Amino acid sequence: MRVAVLGGDGFVGWPTTLHLSNLGHEVAVVDNLSRRWIDTELGVQSLTPMDSIQERQRIWKEVTGRSLLFEHIDVADEYPRFKDWLATWRPEAVIHFAEQRAAPYSMKSDRHKTYTVNNNVNATHNLLNALVATETDAHVVHLGTMGVYGYSTAGASIPEGYLTVDVSLDDGGKTSREILYPTDAGSIYHMTKCLDQVLFQFYAKNDGVRITDLHQGIVWGTHTDQTRRHEQLINRFDYDGDYGTVLNRFLIQAALHHPLTVHGTGGQSRAFIHIQDSVRCIAIALANPPKRGERTKIFNQMTEVHRVRDLAKLVSGLTGADIVYLPNPRKEAAENELSVKNEQFVALGLDPIKLQTGLLTELVDVAGKYIHRVDRSRIPSTSAWTREIAAKLVTEIEANGAPGGTD
Amino acid sequence: MRVAVLGGDGFVGWPTTLHLSNLGHEVAVVDNLSRRWIDTELGVQSLTPMDSIQERQRIWKEVTGRSLLFEHIDVADEYPRFKDWLATWRPEAVIHFAEQRAAPYSMKSDRHKTYTVNNNVNATHNLLNALVATETDAHVVHLGTMGVYGYSTAGASIPEGYLTVDVSLDDGGKTSREILYPTDAGSIYHMTKCLDQVLFQFYAKNDGVRITDLHQGIVWGTHTDQTRRHEQLINRFDYDGDYGTVLNRFLIQAALHHPLTVHGTGGQSRAFIHIQDSVRCIAIALANPPKRGERTKIFNQMTEVHRVRDLAKLVSGLTGADIVYLPNPRKEAAENELSVKNEQFVALGLDPIKLQTGLLTELVDVAGKYIHRVDRSRIPSTSAWTREIAAKLVTEIEANGAPGGTD
Repeated sequence: MRVAVLGGDGFVGWPTTLHLSNLGHEVAVVDNLSRRWIDTELGVQSLTPMDSIQERQRIWKEVTGRSLLFEHIDVADEYPRFKDWLATWRPEAVIHFAEQRAAPYSMKSDRHKTYTVNNNVNATHNLLNALVATETDAHVVHLGTMGVYGYSTAGASIPEGYLTVDVSLDDGGKTSREILYPTDAGSIYHMTKCLDQVLFQFYAKNDGVRITDLHQGIVWGTHTDQTRRHEQLINRFDYDGDYGTVLNRFLIQAALHHPLTVHGTGGQSRAFIHIQDSVRCIAIALANPPKRGERTKIFNQMTEVHRVRDLAKLVSGLTGADIVYLPNPRKEAAENELSVKNEQFVALGLDPIKLQTGLLTELVDVAGKYIHRVDRSRIPSTSAWTREIAAKLVTEIEANGAPGGTD
Repeated sequence: MRVAVLGGDGFVGWPTTLHLSNLGHEVAVVDNLSRRWIDTELGVQSLTPMDSIQERQRIWKEVTGRSLLFEHIDVADEYPRFKDWLATWRPEAVIHFAEQRAAPYSMKSDRHKTYTVNNNVNATHNLLNALVATETDAHVVHLGTMGVYGYSTAGASIPEGYLTVDVSLDDGGKTSREILYPTDAGSIYHMTKCLDQVLFQFYAKNDGVRITDLHQGIVWGTHTDQTRRHEQLINRFDYDGDYGTVLNRFLIQAALHHPLTVHGTGGQSRAFIHIQDSVRCIAIALANPPKRGERTKIFNQMTEVHRVRDLAKLVSGLTGADIVYLPNPRKEAAENELSVKNEQFVALGLDPIKLQTGLLTELVDVAGKYIHRVDRSRIPSTSAWTREIAAKLVTEIEANGAPGGTD
């Protein structure tokens, strides 16, 4: 199948590209390389030494004999170029990662908020719009997040995208109606994913676009079977306060003999998935498109739920690292319950990789191997959700030293 | 009060500006004059001869002694300039009309879809973002539409923005939860208003921005007490297939001794409001802001519901015009029920102007007075919702002559 991977140079995009190419698909990466530009802006780099996309293409060809196409297009900002490319290459499926994906980055300043909203909404809309305009009947697989629900779902498992509700009728009766599960975003980034699902609802209904929206949990790990095939195919590994996800950050802190920094009480429950499962889920979704005219398929792409403090304890147990509790830069509930349904992927054959399966040790090894590349000053999470929280963070940092950044 | 009216040069924006200025508020119009550019693009003009915004300022000053400020800023595209202006002028309230407001225009082509999404989302987001960044505690009053619900609400009156639903708990129990009334947009334009309400939900929660979202029905009429005060203060009157609203279009057709063109069966039920009531509602909303930290206030801004074919019969009875039924360029239910709650505005003192109150005759007079300015070829609605509908429209036009455009 001809598959376009928008954002195929990113953290999940790259291993997805390799996974699909290895399965025999003809894969084109469409990327504006914005993630590399953001590294430059923030003055950070991947823990792992990551090659250029062109070098990655060359190595993949050398190792497997398979070609990867690369198109340098900004889908959000270059609609005409993207449309022309689409009309020429005519993919049968499009995997859509072309969005700014870090909640802290989206909250850094008003400039970052504007960028995230403008980039994410226009990327998604330009894709749908161009598919319809060029009459390209491609299945769209989008990477969303379970964070659209704001984790405020105590006692009720998050279903896979839809909710049946009773509506009271004027005559005193009731009617049953299926709605998109109500969203309640906790950051600008998460909000853009709520906007995406409204765009999907419209284009599925009005134009019959076939869409699968994957509500992904927090991804951990860095290697997949395909990125392991050559050192220069290695995936990126973010440890900084904006792009690093919680488990990967704990492992880096442990490798640095630094205390694990928990924000708030650590009572936040989050859904997790290993990167190998993430790329497998995408391949499964690709193989099971909705029918034309059907509503958007929504899968919860996660395998287990943990509280942040329990993860800290797990890593502490594994590595001997201490745990410190710091002020939370986010505006969120200190403690929340979370329970998530993921029956669809399990029914389609996903056999989850759990935290207990030993891959944590592999991550500890990655952290140890490249630890000389870490800039400790980039570890603290300093992007605050409001001005009031920012002021509090500054006070705490002045009192205690930079949180997490230095010993 | 210092009130900024974004989009204050438009069809509802202009009479709102005058109404608020007349009430004693200090009013600044912020507008990129895009509506005038779109007239140029489409090759249409307002039925009424409309002066430049600068001339309008001069006349209002002459007639009332009151000043209107005018700032030529594109809120969607010039964030830094808008932010600077906001920080300097520091409005206490912002009325937000700065969105592309015609569903047919939003569906004309992929270029128009991209424009509408990009313009509307960025205008709303830039406003909210800039208010927070500049610490401007202004009440935002936004013009939304009841069309966000897609008119698929048979048997249940549309409440004012929220719905209480039962969510089943994992332990077998139930919990009650208040959610934004679920949306189901029928056009790209309507979809952008669904996106807006997600933006409002986030900024009200995260930053305590005080927001009132007015879910307005279709506006009819053209004059208000203030636009009547001088011929050069006259409001615009759109009759073309993209921007003309149904009742105003029927009146123009009648004045031209042309059959009234009903799309589909005319069984579409729609909510209506007279422009005088529209500006009164905005003043009422302005005087009743939500408290800081409160959820977005949502009012249904409409006064009555009619089926399109009943409006055609009303105008036919008044003018003797015939009625013809043409293919519907929209993808929508042929017939729908609609019932809407508007208790909040009524409780706050709105005394609705109904269609029966004689103002229709005034509109017939407006149509008659300026009928020499009408370009009949611009009357047909030709913006189709899908390629299939467009093809059908072309076939019908070839068979029967241009629908509505020529006798």
